[in-house]
Amino acid sequence: MKISFEIKDKDIAGRIGKLEIENEHNGTKKCIETPALMPVYNVNNPVVSIEELKDKFNTKILMTNAYILLKSHKEKVIEEGIHKFLNFDGIIAVDSGSYQLMEYGSIDISNKEILKFEESIKAEIGSFLDIPTLPDAYKKIADENLTETLKRAKEAKELNLNLIINAAIQGGTFIDLRAKAAKEISKNFELNAIGGIVRLMEEYRFDELINIIVNVKKNIKASNVVHAFGLGHPMIFGLAVALGCDIFDSAAYALFAKDKRYITNYGTKKISELEYLPCSCPVCHNKNPNDLDEHDIALHNLYVSYEEIRKVKQAIKENNLWEYIEMRAISHPNLYKAVKALKKHRKFLSQFDPITKRSAFFDFGFDIRTEIYNVKKRIKNVNVGKDDFVKVGIFGNVPKQILDMYPFNAFGIKSDASDEEKIKTIMQYQFGKDADKILDKFNLIIKRSKNTKRIRWIYDSKTKELIASVRAQDHFIIPHKKLGEELHKFFKFPKLRVVISDEAVPFVKEGRNVFAKFITNIDKNLRAGEECLVVDKQDNLIATGTLLLAPIECMSFKRGVAVRVRK
Amino acid sequence: MKISFEIKDKDIAGRIGKLEIENEHNGTKKCIETPALMPVYNVNNPVVSIEELKDKFNTKILMTNAYILLKSHKEKVIEEGIHKFLNFDGIIAVDSGSYQLMEYGSIDISNKEILKFEESIKAEIGSFLDIPTLPDAYKKIADENLTETLKRAKEAKELNLNLIINAAIQGGTFIDLRAKAAKEISKNFELNAIGGIVRLMEEYRFDELINIIVNVKKNIKASNVVHAFGLGHPMIFGLAVALGCDIFDSAAYALFAKDKRYITNYGTKKISELEYLPCSCPVCHNKNPNDLDEHDIALHNLYVSYEEIRKVKQAIKENNLWEYIEMRAISHPNLYKAVKALKKHRKFLSQFDPITKRSAFFDFGFDIRTEIYNVKKRIKNVNVGKDDFVKVGIFGNVPKQILDMYPFNAFGIKSDASDEEKIKTIMQYQFGKDADKILDKFNLIIKRSKNTKRIRWIYDSKTKELIASVRAQDHFIIPHKKLGEELHKFFKFPKLRVVISDEAVPFVKEGRNVFAKFITNIDKNLRAGEECLVVDKQDNLIATGTLLLAPIECMSFKRGVAVRVRK
Repeated sequence: MKISFEIKDKDIAGRIGKLEIENEHNGTKKCIETPALMPVYNVNNPVVSIEELKDKFNTKILMTNAYILLKSHKEKVIEEGIHKFLNFDGIIAVDSGSYQLMEYGSIDISNKEILKFEESIKAEIGSFLDIPTLPDAYKKIADENLTETLKRAKEAKELNLNLIINAAIQGGTFIDLRAKAAKEISKNFELNAIGGIVRLMEEYRFDELINIIVNVKKNIKASNVVHAFGLGHPMIFGLAVALGCDIFDSAAYALFAKDKRYITNYGTKKISELEYLPCSCPVCHNKNPNDLDEHDIALHNLYVSYEEIRKVKQAIKENNLWEYIEMRAISHPNLYKAVKALKKHRKFLSQFDPITKRSAFFDFGFDIRTEIYNVKKRIKNVNVGKDDFVKVGIFGNVPKQILDMYPFNAFGIKSDASDEEKIKTIMQYQFGKDADKILDKFNLIIKRSKNTKRIRWIYDSKTKELIASVRAQDHFIIPHKKLGEELHKFFKFPKLRVVISDEAVPFVKEGRNVFAKFITNIDKNLRAGEECLVVDKQDNLIATGTLLLAPIECMSFKRGVAVRVRK
Repeated sequence: MKISFEIKDKDIAGRIGKLEIENEHNGTKKCIETPALMPVYNVNNPVVSIEELKDKFNTKILMTNAYILLKSHKEKVIEEGIHKFLNFDGIIAVDSGSYQLMEYGSIDISNKEILKFEESIKAEIGSFLDIPTLPDAYKKIADENLTETLKRAKEAKELNLNLIINAAIQGGTFIDLRAKAAKEISKNFELNAIGGIVRLMEEYRFDELINIIVNVKKNIKASNVVHAFGLGHPMIFGLAVALGCDIFDSAAYALFAKDKRYITNYGTKKISELEYLPCSCPVCHNKNPNDLDEHDIALHNLYVSYEEIRKVKQAIKENNLWEYIEMRAISHPNLYKAVKALKKHRKFLSQFDPITKRSAFFDFGFDIRTEIYNVKKRIKNVNVGKDDFVKVGIFGNVPKQILDMYPFNAFGIKSDASDEEKIKTIMQYQFGKDADKILDKFNLIIKRSKNTKRIRWIYDSKTKELIASVRAQDHFIIPHKKLGEELHKFFKFPKLRVVISDEAVPFVKEGRNVFAKFITNIDKNLRAGEECLVVDKQDNLIATGTLLLAPIECMSFKRGVAVRVRK
């Protein structure tokens, strides 16, 4: 089995991804879009049937338990293969007996045994027998558990099975253990599962949950697929996605239904507490709370979980994932506090976050946003008079010359700066200190759009050449050929550069986009969404374009477009 | 036609109401629960059919336009009656030609003519030909419009039709004009429509919208039914309900659909902006944005609108409407600002708000809640040592003796106060200055629950009598007979009193609940949800009980239970 993963769109450290699993034995490819919900199907007690999963939810990936299969259906499932056995063509992930191990203290199979069984039933994704550590465990226990887990991970790796390993990163609530586990696991496995976090979610210990996710993300490859193991409550999908989680399994939809617990994307209600059904899903829209049985509630819980995934994906598309998380934070005081505490991870998250966004910046008084970090850093590059600064909401002092740019443009503050001042200051803000000096080479003519009356084009009157355009939406400067060349001359390597390997050079010269796998080096201070210089190893300028990924992603991903090259 | 309205449940100034319309001519009664959505049905161009409204949405009240009926279907609709004509048995409200008047400047029918037509087609609810004033109109114009509107209102009143008049309160954005209109209209009509606010909603001028609603509410009877005319966007239903609005008509579901605008409860999206449908309604759950035509979008818009009404009602049932509004505030910066600005209406709103709630107090950093006003006022009654105060989040300094009470109990702060100190301080907080002295008459024995270990019963060891219990959920003292008598002796009339008319006395003596219509006077400092003394006109104590309505509501409503009497 071979896994490929690429980023199709992004916001904060979240991404819409294309995850492909290729079975090299028979050449079949299965593909899902992430963030993805992976419902857990309990073979011996399915609350929602496979047919329902397919028909009602268009389920393309699910998880089931290998230990139960081994105990109850061994021969049949080996003979038929898991896909025929379940009558499900999509991607099937099997969990090992870890959960049972945690529940019963010990189980009667070995790591090797369960892994070989997982391969034998032809699941796409399997798990080694990791040892989950509960929160509040002693560090010694957590450490011992982790050592054993990593041994089993190594064993899984060495078995070299035809199986993608959903490799668990354990370590309890100990950040150093999590970091160690993440580093180890990340090296050998491309699908990484953050384990042992269900209890934190159930106990509303969101701050600890966030710390774990962030510290795992810091220690794994940006291109690894992250499965938030057991994180099945939609109220935190947005948050977990923003931190870089890609897959959420949900047993919660069924477990909650057993207890008559009704999931909403802003919390959980006992069905007995409800007088009205706060939902329009096919189950709820014309029913009363008393009408719902376990099966109905499970269906509802799944509808609302899938819905939340779509909502989060749409928020990524609109680049308003921050606002989305802030909205969801108003669900529980612990979630609110945890989201407010994201401020301490701002620097880390800001390296992933696009520098410009498709939606206006909405300020809801949360002082947590990545923009604040990125923007303040950029403003330091700008050389303007002391009196040129104006207060712009949460951003504090901002030069009046850049008020038309994202994110400041959302504040509707008018500026009396001249067009030339604006352009010169934007140059510094966008490309770096003294970048305005580049413009001295030209006889600038700045033209405004007839429709919008906003700055739109920058010409050189000497050559009559269009040297740059200014994007209406966010007022970023888009350098054309000539300005790209001057930027390249002015700034020393590696500033503004994306370095590509020789084999890609001819294609990019023809105007083809730069794929991540051809990138050999990059200016770490670049941000997704910004204009960059594509160069070869000798720093010859090959093209200009828009960087679509964060530098850390460019260096890690082996699939997908990294720079949209300007033709 | 006769209208009756009673409160079934409440939170902030919002209420779940039972609205009944009785046609005295034929004795039929039609009943709806409020807050209610009233979809607008366009006879000549229905996007969603009457059958769909009934089947899919269980619609019990709708609005249609009398002017259009008069122009296009006059004879038939008079002959058949509007219910047969539309094939709809529920409550039908008809709008006059005000909208057309606004759009075209003038129309060719008189106020009297349209009103008589409305009666002739046997609609339950009609409208006079009010003149809406757009925001930003000159005051002179607004004033003239209002004068004419009030003249027409008077004419409607004098016609004495068999029609509930949905009486428009106009006045544009001029608060004094709105107040004048509200006072006038409220006197003569029990169904009051806040008109001329659609544009404010469309332009996201939520602060002005709130000011208008609050100032109307301040000047009408608490028992009047409030129709927020044209306020059809679910993102503000919760807010409008919290301010005391009961009915929302929605033409938006269809008008937005025509422009391919897709409503969510956190904003509006162009369908072309959507890559994913952020909804699980029967229309959306298995479709893609491109699949939706105008009819689909209209259905979706209605599903989400009805869903939001249910969500808001559920929030009232759980008494977490504040949290709900705060969540919805994170939809648009203007809504956020407007919600933050509710602080200035806190005193007004606090008179409606229950003193104790069914859900824990969740603090999301909004300094707007009615509890803050009510609580600070109560704390002034408490006589404790300077060192007894502890910081409790948004509430500031709170005596440690009352930390178990709502809303402080949500903060989980432990107190070292003795049980007796606690009880004495709660007495003062709950009933007033020096109320602890009442307890000196008793030899107190305070007992704790075996299960919860919390204070539960207060006995007098002399008489062995149970003088009070302490409610587990919020630690409020529930006085039994003896303590009720002592409270009555200790505090002078009208403190803690609900005065009932003589005709109700025998029933209440038997333990029947007090209905609002029998209340002749009340202590204005009481709050809904608190323990009160029911007395006759001579201040003889008749019973103790829990006040269910706000004092202002007790004095205004003619229907419904106001005090749940303790047997």
